[in-house]
Amino acid sequence: MTPVMDAASLNSLMAEIFPQVAADFRVERVASMEADVRLLVGDAHLRPGGTVSGPSMFALADLAMYAVLLAMIGPVALAVTTNASIDFMRKPEAGRDLIGRARLHKLGKVLAVGDVLITNDGAEAVLARSSMTYAIPPER
Amino acid sequence: MTPVMDAASLNSLMAEIFPQVAADFRVERVASMEADVRLLVGDAHLRPGGTVSGPSMFALADLAMYAVLLAMIGPVALAVTTNASIDFMRKPEAGRDLIGRARLHKLGKVLAVGDVLITNDGAEAVLARSSMTYAIPPER
Amino acid sequence: MTPVMDAASLNSLMAEIFPQVAADFRVERVASMEADVRLLVGDAHLRPGGTVSGPSMFALADLAMYAVLLAMIGPVALAVTTNASIDFMRKPEAGRDLIGRARLHKLGKVLAVGDVLITNDGAEAVLARSSMTYAIPPER
Amino acid sequence: MTPVMDAASLNSLMAEIFPQVAADFRVERVASMEADVRLLVGDAHLRPGGTVSGPSMFALADLAMYAVLLAMIGPVALAVTTNASIDFMRKPEAGRDLIGRARLHKLGKVLAVGDVLITNDGAEAVLARSSMTYAIPPER
Repeated sequence: MTPVMDAASLNSLMAEIFPQVAADFRVERVASMEADVRLLVGDAHLRPGGTVSGPSMFALADLAMYAVLLAMIGPVALAVTTNASIDFMRKPEAGRDLIGRARLHKLGKVLAVGDVLITNDGAEAVLARSSMTYAIPPER
Repeated sequence: MTPVMDAASLNSLMAEIFPQVAADFRVERVASMEADVRLLVGDAHLRPGGTVSGPSMFALADLAMYAVLLAMIGPVALAVTTNASIDFMRKPEAGRDLIGRARLHKLGKVLAVGDVLITNDGAEAVLARSSMTYAIPPER
Repeated sequence: MTPVMDAASLNSLMAEIFPQVAADFRVERVASMEADVRLLVGDAHLRPGGTVSGPSMFALADLAMYAVLLAMIGPVALAVTTNASIDFMRKPEAGRDLIGRARLHKLGKVLAVGDVLITNDGAEAVLARSSMTYAIPPER
Repeated sequence: MTPVMDAASLNSLMAEIFPQVAADFRVERVASMEADVRLLVGDAHLRPGGTVSGPSMFALADLAMYAVLLAMIGPVALAVTTNASIDFMRKPEAGRDLIGRARLHKLGKVLAVGDVLITNDGAEAVLARSSMTYAIPPER
């Protein structure tokens, strides 16, 4: 399947619908059933110990799944997460961006299921792994 | 088991270690193996459709678990989430705070496991339900 | 909401549709949005160390959710689990039945979400906690 | 990292420690941080609609993770699952074996985290995806 939105259109859409947070994230790559999203790590994302907080990593995973879903189905802003699980495995390095690589395993009419691997930018080790289910609203 | 930190000490600790986000949250009640935390909903927590975003609810669940854990074991700032799952079931009402009620099911030496129910302030319906595991660092 | 099937009808239905496994389980109690199911622990459920295996506890959680769902909506045999998460917290005692107490948090038209607490029969300590989402087929 | 147990030794070990269920499963391949396990589908694994039951797929995911973990650390029979989440995405085909491909993302001293993709034997489509955490007992 070919994506119907590219990274630039996704970034424009995010800036419009999530003005509060879009500046922290950037869709970097879109491919069939895949998207990479960057978290531009700033002070607001840190927690004791100098690493990126769990909720910031969750937000990255959630946005990466939203990006790949919209890349495949178009600008359905009201798609919502119904379930998510996340394993935090390693501490992020301080002062380095995070990349969330989302991959859809299933794209149904009602539900989309995928997972997201989070790494430090340019590194291999998986810091966190998340699986997410989105519900796609019927009223399109 | 009696808590070793009360709501006021937890709020002071949060303000010190999470200065970026503590203003959005308030520990309201601590009891044996339980804590209630309020998310003071503001514009930064909203998403398309006018409801509170998933990552904001995740942050509330995570902070509520952190609060109940520290209430029981004391100010171990470096306790970290290792795993979380969350089900989003109903849309929060716009313009109303959220309450996360965390309850510990197990408080071991190394791992603590609990769950969090999120409701609108003053309402009954469960908006989201999360289970979380925290790792307690040995170097205390 | 009043259940539309009681424990006896659920046990008959299970015996009919799951003849391979129904003998290991017994629905014991049904109430509004709740059901208790017993796992009659036998050798087939054990693992090294003499405790009940994780998959046996998962099967109990899954059946308990199925029981409460059918109790509320009637004999929709084709309802299926779409997502489950389970935390294993304490070892079950050898030679003692397990009870799974399922509670529905949300009963929508398409999805039902609930959780299950597993204890040893007659004991308080939670051995495992599971959350589950079932999809309800439209073709009813 | 090189595995310290191969498929044959894992199958012998399973037959010894899980005599009740080992006949249903077969470790087929072991590689660095990976293992493939086959579920030999029989009547006991089916559910209404003729597909493999959720608990049978959970058992396959759990055994595949156990296999890859023991492949890497040796015959530590008492390693236990502490947390699992599973998404069921597509119906298995009736009368066809399932393959669970487990991959470790993290192998720590105390916790191992990985995921498992389940497909029909010889097919590509992911039927279920699970993430699992195992606790490794210290008393080795």
